[in-house]
Amino acid sequence: MASDPEIQIKQPRTKRGQVTMRKLLDAATAEFGERGFHEASISSITSRAGVALGTFYTYFQSKDALFRALIVDLSGQIRADASAAIAGELDPLAIERRALHAFLEFASEHKEIYRIIDEAEFVDPEMYRYHYTTIAGRIAQRLRDGSKNDALRADIGEIEAWAIMGMNVFLGLRYAVWRAADDAGLDDVSRTANELLERGLSRGTSETAR
Amino acid sequence: MASDPEIQIKQPRTKRGQVTMRKLLDAATAEFGERGFHEASISSITSRAGVALGTFYTYFQSKDALFRALIVDLSGQIRADASAAIAGELDPLAIERRALHAFLEFASEHKEIYRIIDEAEFVDPEMYRYHYTTIAGRIAQRLRDGSKNDALRADIGEIEAWAIMGMNVFLGLRYAVWRAADDAGLDDVSRTANELLERGLSRGTSETAR
Repeated sequence: MASDPEIQIKQPRTKRGQVTMRKLLDAATAEFGERGFHEASISSITSRAGVALGTFYTYFQSKDALFRALIVDLSGQIRADASAAIAGELDPLAIERRALHAFLEFASEHKEIYRIIDEAEFVDPEMYRYHYTTIAGRIAQRLRDGSKNDALRADIGEIEAWAIMGMNVFLGLRYAVWRAADDAGLDDVSRTANELLERGLSRGTSETAR
Repeated sequence: MASDPEIQIKQPRTKRGQVTMRKLLDAATAEFGERGFHEASISSITSRAGVALGTFYTYFQSKDALFRALIVDLSGQIRADASAAIAGELDPLAIERRALHAFLEFASEHKEIYRIIDEAEFVDPEMYRYHYTTIAGRIAQRLRDGSKNDALRADIGEIEAWAIMGMNVFLGLRYAVWRAADDAGLDDVSRTANELLERGLSRGTSETAR
């Protein structure tokens, strides 16, 4: 990935333009989430957004361009959500727990994100890769910061970042999107996953001694 | 998931029938992997398999039925591959390392499985869920066995199983399917991920004392 697709999404300059673009992106989330990319129509999206059909083309050149912008937008929402959840937290393991918990809540409230992001693998593979590569990059940066202050092992890096991202994505699929009534709550899920990150699965010496 | 879709796939009784079905499933792997479900055609699959078009319908009622059988088949191949890799291994953490390594090798040699299984989310959501639910079930069983013999913590279960599956899927995506020339080798990836499972990310007391 030589280029960062994020810079290709033009933001409207006026407040009113930003509001309209937000409406279109939210309508697109609902439309792509419910009907999938191929069945989704621009007229249905503008109708959901409550804007004129012609207005659409002021913002996006095509359905493909809108889809691309939507992946960037969802990635940004997930990032902003995680940032807010970990703000002020200094302990690197607590940061991962909070980030997972925030993601599980986000996925519970926006179950359609899985379908949209997973469809990008087929509709726009570059954006699919962009999405996961940028998230893994952020996790790797957090782990490096945690290593520096002696809380985490010094030898952790990109492999652990992809492992953690995979954990989080599948825990979200299972416990947010596919949630059953008698499932563990999101607090339990994020605490249990975090314990795995903290001390692994081995029965430690202290525990055996109990 | 009340019913197990696996039992719905009829196996041919004769050796010759089994060979033909294998050819059709392998041809379907190539066809769905390259062209995706919607673009894939039955005539192209029978042509790849070197069997007559009419023969197809002896085995499968439709492209949908073939796709369904293929997911069951790929799940079975992944299971058989993991079983062979962990045969005779008693240490539960070494079992997870070997299972991951076998999966990374399988994904390296069959990069199209990601596309096929991910497309099931759209083409046949029940099979998508079946695939991941059965894998998580197998991992959870291995973890319970490992807990019984005192090697693993006693309090681990389904959440850890989904976490491990997610790790493995995303490590396969990154280091097998999207592999770059200068990436860590599959041995390194499975060892590093296994260390995370063994002792977590924390800087242990022993390490700090060094």
